[in-house]
Amino acid sequence: MRISELSRQGGAPVATIKFYLREGLLPPGEPTARNQADYSDVHVARVRLIRTLTSVGQLSLSAIREVLAAVDAAEPHVRDLSVVLNRAMFTDQVAANDIPGGDSARRHVDKFLEGLGWQVQTDSPGRQTLAHALAALRYLGWDVDAEVFLPYAAAAQTLARQEHAALPDEAAANVARSVLLGVALTALRQLAREDAAAS
Amino acid sequence: MRISELSRQGGAPVATIKFYLREGLLPPGEPTARNQADYSDVHVARVRLIRTLTSVGQLSLSAIREVLAAVDAAEPHVRDLSVVLNRAMFTDQVAANDIPGGDSARRHVDKFLEGLGWQVQTDSPGRQTLAHALAALRYLGWDVDAEVFLPYAAAAQTLARQEHAALPDEAAANVARSVLLGVALTALRQLAREDAAAS
Repeated sequence: MRISELSRQGGAPVATIKFYLREGLLPPGEPTARNQADYSDVHVARVRLIRTLTSVGQLSLSAIREVLAAVDAAEPHVRDLSVVLNRAMFTDQVAANDIPGGDSARRHVDKFLEGLGWQVQTDSPGRQTLAHALAALRYLGWDVDAEVFLPYAAAAQTLARQEHAALPDEAAANVARSVLLGVALTALRQLAREDAAAS
Repeated sequence: MRISELSRQGGAPVATIKFYLREGLLPPGEPTARNQADYSDVHVARVRLIRTLTSVGQLSLSAIREVLAAVDAAEPHVRDLSVVLNRAMFTDQVAANDIPGGDSARRHVDKFLEGLGWQVQTDSPGRQTLAHALAALRYLGWDVDAEVFLPYAAAAQTLARQEHAALPDEAAANVARSVLLGVALTALRQLAREDAAAS
């Protein structure tokens, strides 16, 4: 198909698709004539994925670039891209190293995760994000330790195991579900808080 | 205290504090001389809150402005700011109205929430975010309905009820905990996925 048809099916303006091509987010089409190329359903799927990760998933283009590189490099039946995805999403996070107590919070978080028996890499970005959250809670005057996260960890583990048991074969679908279910969980927590306040 | 001391205790440069004052995020100090003002512990707490919501909570300044206005307007013992907070955080979300199937997804989400018996306002932004997530999952080829969110809703409800039972009296603390526990939950979901993949 031509770029105009790719635009229609992918739901993005031609200018946006040209931008994706220039940025290397979208592989080039098959050249057919000077300044023309032929695109396939693979391109349609990729345009839809980029749009969705941007608008609903709120990922930056640089995070999406990292995720797509991992998707393209993945073995045909890679079962889980969670480590790569976590790293890519972390590039969107502002460094929060200026919150006092970060080092101590990090040690508590590491110990907490060890206590849970979770197998996560030492440099997994989630450790640092969790440490930032703990340091910030303390900094703002709540005298808690990492144990306050226990119910959240239990909920996260239940959901992650269910997700892992139903992982799609395809790497791109794998990434999309992970991001979108994360968006859904955040929305549901907001709604549940509203319900709890009203009940 | 002078602005230099507020800067030290609040952990933000003087230029940043002046910016917060200009933007109305921080109430003015008590004037003591031309170009000088006296600041109190209230200002220190507010500077810390803004810094934390920005860096760890990833809120935009416009969302923080809305949240702080609600905090300042709250009755001394308001028990829950969740509705206001949800609305403010939603201002940070890109409109995702261009994902096809949004209207149908919204109807399914409304019905799903009704089935759960949750008391949430008709125009609560979480409904729309959840509908966007559902529409996007379908758009990318996963043939699901809102029931796929059931385990996420159950987890969110458990956590929200625990949070509501332990709400701090102070509106600012209330907001800070809600945002930071949300950050923690997202980090824990990432870590739990990594663990599930490694196990």
